[in-house]
Amino acid sequence: MQAPRGTRDFGPKEMAIRRLAERRLRDVLRSFNYREVQTPTFEELELFTAKSGEGILGEIYDFTDKGGRRLCLRPELTAPVLRFYFSDLKAEPKPLRLFYFGPCYRYDRPQAGRYREFWQLGAEVLGDASPEAHAEILWLALRLFSTLGLENIVLRVGHLGILRGLLEQQGVPRAEQGPLMRLIDKKDLKQLEKEMEARVGAAKTQEFLTFFDVQDLDELKARPLPPQASAAASHLSLVLGRLKDFGATSASVRLDPTISRGLDYYTGLVFELDCPALGAEKQLLGGGEYDLAPVFGAQPVAAVGFGLGFDRTLIALDATGVPLQAEDRVEDWVGALSTGAIPTAQRLAEQLRAKGRRVELDLAAEPPKKVLARAARAGARFCYLIGDRELEKGTVAVKDLDAGVQSETPLAQFTVPA
Amino acid sequence: MQAPRGTRDFGPKEMAIRRLAERRLRDVLRSFNYREVQTPTFEELELFTAKSGEGILGEIYDFTDKGGRRLCLRPELTAPVLRFYFSDLKAEPKPLRLFYFGPCYRYDRPQAGRYREFWQLGAEVLGDASPEAHAEILWLALRLFSTLGLENIVLRVGHLGILRGLLEQQGVPRAEQGPLMRLIDKKDLKQLEKEMEARVGAAKTQEFLTFFDVQDLDELKARPLPPQASAAASHLSLVLGRLKDFGATSASVRLDPTISRGLDYYTGLVFELDCPALGAEKQLLGGGEYDLAPVFGAQPVAAVGFGLGFDRTLIALDATGVPLQAEDRVEDWVGALSTGAIPTAQRLAEQLRAKGRRVELDLAAEPPKKVLARAARAGARFCYLIGDRELEKGTVAVKDLDAGVQSETPLAQFTVPA
Repeated sequence: MQAPRGTRDFGPKEMAIRRLAERRLRDVLRSFNYREVQTPTFEELELFTAKSGEGILGEIYDFTDKGGRRLCLRPELTAPVLRFYFSDLKAEPKPLRLFYFGPCYRYDRPQAGRYREFWQLGAEVLGDASPEAHAEILWLALRLFSTLGLENIVLRVGHLGILRGLLEQQGVPRAEQGPLMRLIDKKDLKQLEKEMEARVGAAKTQEFLTFFDVQDLDELKARPLPPQASAAASHLSLVLGRLKDFGATSASVRLDPTISRGLDYYTGLVFELDCPALGAEKQLLGGGEYDLAPVFGAQPVAAVGFGLGFDRTLIALDATGVPLQAEDRVEDWVGALSTGAIPTAQRLAEQLRAKGRRVELDLAAEPPKKVLARAARAGARFCYLIGDRELEKGTVAVKDLDAGVQSETPLAQFTVPA
Repeated sequence: MQAPRGTRDFGPKEMAIRRLAERRLRDVLRSFNYREVQTPTFEELELFTAKSGEGILGEIYDFTDKGGRRLCLRPELTAPVLRFYFSDLKAEPKPLRLFYFGPCYRYDRPQAGRYREFWQLGAEVLGDASPEAHAEILWLALRLFSTLGLENIVLRVGHLGILRGLLEQQGVPRAEQGPLMRLIDKKDLKQLEKEMEARVGAAKTQEFLTFFDVQDLDELKARPLPPQASAAASHLSLVLGRLKDFGATSASVRLDPTISRGLDYYTGLVFELDCPALGAEKQLLGGGEYDLAPVFGAQPVAAVGFGLGFDRTLIALDATGVPLQAEDRVEDWVGALSTGAIPTAQRLAEQLRAKGRRVELDLAAEPPKKVLARAARAGARFCYLIGDRELEKGTVAVKDLDAGVQSETPLAQFTVPA
């Protein structure tokens, strides 16, 4: 029997790396005063169809429980976290900074970097729509990757107000923009041209398409923009300025006013972060400003957040040649050479453990040669041997397996190695 | 919308406590050289029916995926970990010490301490059936609770060889013991008496039942035991002796030869750990020696392990009056009093974050009074204020909110508080 298709078992070495990466990411989130929340692995199916439409049903793990509830494994975590916010956290002081880390599920053809069970880390800021808040969450995103040592990344930042304003200017009202926005999200400009021409004619379509050549904010601001697009460009300009103040380099951040994110609940700032070395499956993070209040029949709240693909981020670290190194070797190997030595060996092991060391206790009561061989095979740094001879003398034999040096120490004076 | 029935959302305060408890447990497991593995949240349904029988279907979350696979949310983690062992980890040096931590699922009537999504921490030792290995895993179980500060617990230890040997002695062969073992597991001695009498008559049943009054190993060994039961009692005697050597007190460990665990794959040593203060739902941990090789058509391997109920353990900490205290307050509140001060405030925040401190950056550019009020409301320890005046002088105003003392420091000489 195997793990179900598209899912993975993680062995000790891989888990040590995953936990190290998780710890580093948590440390950064903590330093920015983000607080962790956790929601159930499954939710009512309606939560996600209300957010993203029935279109997601094709790739969701849905099921009916024994009580007749229509449930599903969560495909993402923003909707559950906002459900929790509107039911329990609304009264918290703003801005409220939350993060989550956990598995999500997608019924999809498994391929390199795409799994049916995958880990998502995300951050959400509620109650602050200022350019400073937006710059901070972008800076946080960059810091999460730099703490892992991943440097060859590009953060692209846009604002839906620009795209939407320009579409409206060319005669496509907001309510009819959805299909075109999704084509822009897929970078399918051929089909976009076709569908837009059918709506507003060739001239307006061509005028709209020139927008895709815009390289920077100055060029954008130099164009005749409708008020909505102009306000969006100004906001974006402030955000990118702050982000530069924060220390972001122009090599890692660039304007991309063509980001559309493809889903209707995004409202303003949008961004995506890529690791170009990964090729087709290069996106590591995506996010933006959104409004999920209508899903919950609630008063709107300023909301901005991102989701980071944890599995793909680890793949990116491997692909760019800076994989994480996690120490999972045993440090101390404590062997009793006789059954009589077991209690003493055990006390020594406890002493080492109390100092936070990783200790294996070998109570097979076998000759030193066998114990040392096992310790070496396990990659231990120190091997401690206590037999009848040592018991009598009140000592312990200590072998530094890296240095190949053995010594004997009185147990009463034994101190845990640094 | 709410979390589905029987599941929970965890807010920042609760998550801080859960992560603290998890970290302490991980540290102990690491110090005993247990290595983490992780398996998928869902598995093929057959894995669990092959292990535990069709009887578990009534309380399992099973579903059929879009590819027609019969899957289920895992009800426990020993079967998945052993599946992984037999497919990928068989060649690892023995003894192999593994642990896991993650959510499991049971479709059950929710009640105090029983959830439909609950967290399980478990440890398994493969390839060592010695009394020392058994004593070590029992000692580890005790250490996991003591590291959390939970002291009022009782570990009960038994051995199926005793029960099985005595049943066989009274005329119930191994193959027919299952239903009786399950009644013993439920402590339903009335029904046990009835069913056993129907099988072997009143005299043999009464003789068997006297066994439930046995208080200690000496009393047990004084009885006429069949060879299997006698060997089991000797093994148990060695295990309990070692456990005492390791430092276990007689208040926290006692013999309970009536533990049957109710499931057919247990083979020898069995144990359960209770927190009596919890009443009916008092069991925090259970485990034993088992054989799952037949499920995988594999060669048997010595295996012993336990599962610890994480949620109920936290309930036990609350119930016994020693709840964990997790620090999740923000430490440093850095406020820019003007937009001009933002870059300087941000640099100061980064400097504090680099030292591992939890920092909130307040860039609203409002007067000191407002910033200090927000910092105090959030429970910050220190509030740093930088406005145009401070910019000019190259200083930062620092208020220790606990002490109520404010001072001013040149930024160039600023050092992060200890």
